[in-house]
Amino acid sequence: MTPTLDPGLPAVVAMGGGHGLAASLRALRRVTSDLTAVVTVADDGGSSGRLRAQFDILPPGDLRMALAALCGDDREGRMWADVLQSRFGGEGPLAGHAIGNLLIAGIWERLGDPVSGLDMVAKLLGVQGRVLPMAAVPLEIEADVIGVDPERPDEVTHIRGQARVAKCPGVVREVRLLPSAPPACPETVEAIHAADFVVLGPGSWFTSVLVHLLVPELGEAIVTTNARRILTLNLVAADETAGFTASTHLEALADHAPRLRLDTIVCDPTYARGDKHLATYAASLGAELVVTPVRATDGRPRHDVNRLAGVYADLMGR
Amino acid sequence: MTPTLDPGLPAVVAMGGGHGLAASLRALRRVTSDLTAVVTVADDGGSSGRLRAQFDILPPGDLRMALAALCGDDREGRMWADVLQSRFGGEGPLAGHAIGNLLIAGIWERLGDPVSGLDMVAKLLGVQGRVLPMAAVPLEIEADVIGVDPERPDEVTHIRGQARVAKCPGVVREVRLLPSAPPACPETVEAIHAADFVVLGPGSWFTSVLVHLLVPELGEAIVTTNARRILTLNLVAADETAGFTASTHLEALADHAPRLRLDTIVCDPTYARGDKHLATYAASLGAELVVTPVRATDGRPRHDVNRLAGVYADLMGR
Repeated sequence: MTPTLDPGLPAVVAMGGGHGLAASLRALRRVTSDLTAVVTVADDGGSSGRLRAQFDILPPGDLRMALAALCGDDREGRMWADVLQSRFGGEGPLAGHAIGNLLIAGIWERLGDPVSGLDMVAKLLGVQGRVLPMAAVPLEIEADVIGVDPERPDEVTHIRGQARVAKCPGVVREVRLLPSAPPACPETVEAIHAADFVVLGPGSWFTSVLVHLLVPELGEAIVTTNARRILTLNLVAADETAGFTASTHLEALADHAPRLRLDTIVCDPTYARGDKHLATYAASLGAELVVTPVRATDGRPRHDVNRLAGVYADLMGR
Repeated sequence: MTPTLDPGLPAVVAMGGGHGLAASLRALRRVTSDLTAVVTVADDGGSSGRLRAQFDILPPGDLRMALAALCGDDREGRMWADVLQSRFGGEGPLAGHAIGNLLIAGIWERLGDPVSGLDMVAKLLGVQGRVLPMAAVPLEIEADVIGVDPERPDEVTHIRGQARVAKCPGVVREVRLLPSAPPACPETVEAIHAADFVVLGPGSWFTSVLVHLLVPELGEAIVTTNARRILTLNLVAADETAGFTASTHLEALADHAPRLRLDTIVCDPTYARGDKHLATYAASLGAELVVTPVRATDGRPRHDVNRLAGVYADLMGR
């Protein structure tokens, strides 16, 4: 989308989904305009879930959110982002649909090709960078969860569907994709190989971060690229990682992607504090552990865009 | 929308709705880029009808069609027009909605102001010219129709709703707007006063052409503007004008707008032929009657864009 790039700007690929990826993109756009977002396509809840059920398309919601996070800095870019992010109200059949989801779904229905459609919306928004799907086909997530029934704490339950996995009680042990070996988008694989930096996380650990490694061509590209691999940890345990420490997050990642090696792991001190295994886990992944404040100063459990941008700028030598 | 206009280009306002207006705009855009479409907002059928019922907004369909007719000449403009004109298929709650209708409705829901929303979509499409609504509020059409019941050919039936009027059996005698004196858009009134030419028709005579004269400020502007007034007649009698000759069309127009004077009336020879009152009616409206081929050469009852463009170019001295 950006026709002339400063040759000194690092090429960065950021992976994730939802609000975690949006925060990551808002930080990274301050460091580079050569930015590619790779977005999970397993969401089956809300407006996206209704649209994929009706049209058998990729769920557009996380893609829309990433596009909005990268919208042009001018009034026009912000106005379009604002419109596409807004939702129909009321009670009727359109209620709850984000305008951008309907537009993306409509473009896909007309054009057939998801990537061309996303590029069209990116241009409309004046996006710096590019937004690509994690896979070329819609995916489902299936999870093995223990402790769903408090009476039987050791029993493993299979939970199917991202929305249900994200909200289920119990502890997620493993996630799988259905289909198990979906095709990646060639553009996504190319971007990872061409990158100077690949950034994973933050985000819903199992359903938005880990899943990228489970798409075979994507996992292979992440493991073999010459890019430096940065992982930004979450700030707290969330629904699907209830009870997790920072190091348990790393353990889950290593369990799902045994060949993955990282260069840098970024963790906020409030979550690193008291986690005596964190340095060991980081080292076992080959990574330097950078414990530095990235949490919002208002105390809410969200990443501060300015702080994240500062950390990425340092790591990327900007 | 067009930042630099050739000072020699005529300022043209074209009024109507649906396919008639779209044909008119596709012809007029070849003559000038200083072009304003003024579009009926009484449609209550199809995708537009469902949207106005759900959100109490102007019906977007005819506005969308006008925007698409004026889309940019480049690949991007045509691709966006194509997408916004296309409709969701299938059976679900979105089926049948034009993508552009959903986008326009969503922008209106977010921005509140119909004209700013239309300008946003116009810019997206690279529109030359501007598309404005006939009134600032959604309208209903009510018609007095005779002969709806073949058993009682003289009985007057009140039919409410544009979609029902357009398809009802019987002969429309009079149409009214509800509310009867809706506010016009100030931008629309300004455009009519600033115009060199105002073009009425072709189109559904009662529900898309006449109705403009029934909005008080708009009717007043059409009657009092210094612009030259051109009326392009339909090619045949259609649903709501079953049995009408060309001169019956003029009679209906004069009945609804007694103060209207025209400069030129354009009629295809196939419809003018044998209509011995046509010249008299034209003269009574103050108009020069121009009988010239404007019908498609394939014999279908639609206006040929090239022929219409040629006639308008002549009339406008281009």
